[in-house]
Amino acid sequence: MGDYEHLLVKQDGDTVRITMNRPERRNALSEPHLRELLHAFEAAGASDATGIVLAAEGKAFSAGHDFADVAARDLAGVRDLLRLCTRVMQTIEQVPQVVVAKVQAIATAAGCQLVASCDLAVAAESAAFALPGGKAGWFCHTPAVPVARNIGRKRLMEMALTGDPVDAATAAEWGLINYVVPDADLDARTDELLARATRGSRFGKGVGKQTLYAQLDRPEADAYAIAVEVMASMSQSPGAREGMASFLEKRRPVWPD
Amino acid sequence: MGDYEHLLVKQDGDTVRITMNRPERRNALSEPHLRELLHAFEAAGASDATGIVLAAEGKAFSAGHDFADVAARDLAGVRDLLRLCTRVMQTIEQVPQVVVAKVQAIATAAGCQLVASCDLAVAAESAAFALPGGKAGWFCHTPAVPVARNIGRKRLMEMALTGDPVDAATAAEWGLINYVVPDADLDARTDELLARATRGSRFGKGVGKQTLYAQLDRPEADAYAIAVEVMASMSQSPGAREGMASFLEKRRPVWPD
Amino acid sequence: MGDYEHLLVKQDGDTVRITMNRPERRNALSEPHLRELLHAFEAAGASDATGIVLAAEGKAFSAGHDFADVAARDLAGVRDLLRLCTRVMQTIEQVPQVVVAKVQAIATAAGCQLVASCDLAVAAESAAFALPGGKAGWFCHTPAVPVARNIGRKRLMEMALTGDPVDAATAAEWGLINYVVPDADLDARTDELLARATRGSRFGKGVGKQTLYAQLDRPEADAYAIAVEVMASMSQSPGAREGMASFLEKRRPVWPD
Repeated sequence: MGDYEHLLVKQDGDTVRITMNRPERRNALSEPHLRELLHAFEAAGASDATGIVLAAEGKAFSAGHDFADVAARDLAGVRDLLRLCTRVMQTIEQVPQVVVAKVQAIATAAGCQLVASCDLAVAAESAAFALPGGKAGWFCHTPAVPVARNIGRKRLMEMALTGDPVDAATAAEWGLINYVVPDADLDARTDELLARATRGSRFGKGVGKQTLYAQLDRPEADAYAIAVEVMASMSQSPGAREGMASFLEKRRPVWPD
Repeated sequence: MGDYEHLLVKQDGDTVRITMNRPERRNALSEPHLRELLHAFEAAGASDATGIVLAAEGKAFSAGHDFADVAARDLAGVRDLLRLCTRVMQTIEQVPQVVVAKVQAIATAAGCQLVASCDLAVAAESAAFALPGGKAGWFCHTPAVPVARNIGRKRLMEMALTGDPVDAATAAEWGLINYVVPDADLDARTDELLARATRGSRFGKGVGKQTLYAQLDRPEADAYAIAVEVMASMSQSPGAREGMASFLEKRRPVWPD
Repeated sequence: MGDYEHLLVKQDGDTVRITMNRPERRNALSEPHLRELLHAFEAAGASDATGIVLAAEGKAFSAGHDFADVAARDLAGVRDLLRLCTRVMQTIEQVPQVVVAKVQAIATAAGCQLVASCDLAVAAESAAFALPGGKAGWFCHTPAVPVARNIGRKRLMEMALTGDPVDAATAAEWGLINYVVPDADLDARTDELLARATRGSRFGKGVGKQTLYAQLDRPEADAYAIAVEVMASMSQSPGAREGMASFLEKRRPVWPD
């Protein structure tokens, strides 16, 4: 699928597998790499796949921004890069597919941001997570945005201020990832979670995911205002109709979309 | 108390016990059932009780919306139903009494939303929690609103996308409930928590609870703007005056309200 | 440093140590005590220190507001006191230094609020945390503001409604503090955490911390709007330039600020 320099992208049944494949660069997110991620997620988002796995090759999941690509830029140039990066993260949240991060190794800075931005995440026991910018001169301002929306404040502060890595077991305990699994089980456990997460009406689940992100981080009454309207509308969708009819008729549903 | 078809409601000292009593319907929340819940919570809220226990009879705490009551409705009809349901949830948060959910069995969809909307929750070890709409055609948009405000984002996504049940021990670890207890201890442990939660000035605690919900989910400066004004006002209340006076005079307080 | 009645303040290398020193009053936060805390944090904030440790002497970290100082005030007088208290809390969040609470004993009401407002917190095993106002007549409205932004909703409700103390191990599990350590190790473990949290460019880390608080508790898109602009600007700072240059040149950084 597509012609990528930094990624391997393949369709595998209902799943699109997007794999960062610049191990020699620790999958650093240069502008070309980010452009490919954006393109790959937009293409997968427009496809009829039900799930996306974001994975990586090599000894790092992703090292975050590529300093070689940042150091020469002026403010406007860096802003463009960060806007592109933010667009990648927001696209992951906005595609209707369920997106699972499969984390085989350390994910730092914008690499950690990728994991935090995926709907779900499974990590190998040997993986780790860090926001190292604070100890390295350029604070992880944008990576901290989705990390802050996954874990508690004191833990966010510890990650962002110390820059030290958090092991996968701790990341699971804090809620940054869903599961920590033996390294050998990473593929199987990721696929197992994705299979559970992609059952049901494709259209209904896509709108469901998108509405979750829309209602988060708002006062509860605002969130209800969004959720009630969407849920009322969706009750009329073929998927919801079939779900209710099959339940009431005690038969297996046949999803129309 | 009252004349209910779906509920058992009784006053027990300072506690109102509201028990969903349609075990043969798995306490599904049909419109009449929701209307009774709204009425029961409004009546309890207007009473001089200090606490409310929301419980259920049978093999389910509540199965959520009753598809038999939803399937025939058009968009406007479903919106009315969801607005009624939201009003029940918001009433639970807005009554001045401390509301504890006593969860003896599985709570799904709007049933799980009820638990998430109660101030406190105690569950039996055999209880479980699920947002199954996503795998059943009609996504749990509104139940996810208070669940998202109790647990972390990745865990919310897992519940809402997979639809699979979460056992009571995991729910306690994630913060969806306060305690998981042996089934045999459920009544005692619920009452013990409620007793601890209802000490002090009734009026002060009611305003306290209501102000907590008002300040949540807002930028901290906005939350302080609310909390400072309320706390300054409440310093002049008879309860606060008595609390401070009894402390300074080293005697037991006599709450005036 | 300075001439304080309620505090011990000393500069210790790059660290300012602010110690509440009214053990006979359980470090209750009278207006004069709050004024000294505000002054001490403002002075430390304007200094070139990189870290601040907030500690306490005696059998309580802090008992919160001093009822002897509250009981005689009218509404306007209490409002002034609460605004001063809020200013102390917000100053802790806004100074560029990393602020660690070192909690040796029970922290209640506004004392617990102090811990919740520090960036990081380490507590001795024998420490505890409580929001007792709800059982004592004057609800902990303002202490609940930062506590709610550190721990989950059900746990907040339990603390605020029951008023019962939470032990240090539970506080760590809930995310109210970062570490619970043996009492004998409290000094060493606090300093170890602070050392890890203050590495890197001082200016970059200060802006980093301040931006974290600015982006929290907002819808994610709003948070990104803030974080992208700050991070783009900061890419041009001498600290970020040196961080990237030293990384690309494989040498140790020499922080310019």
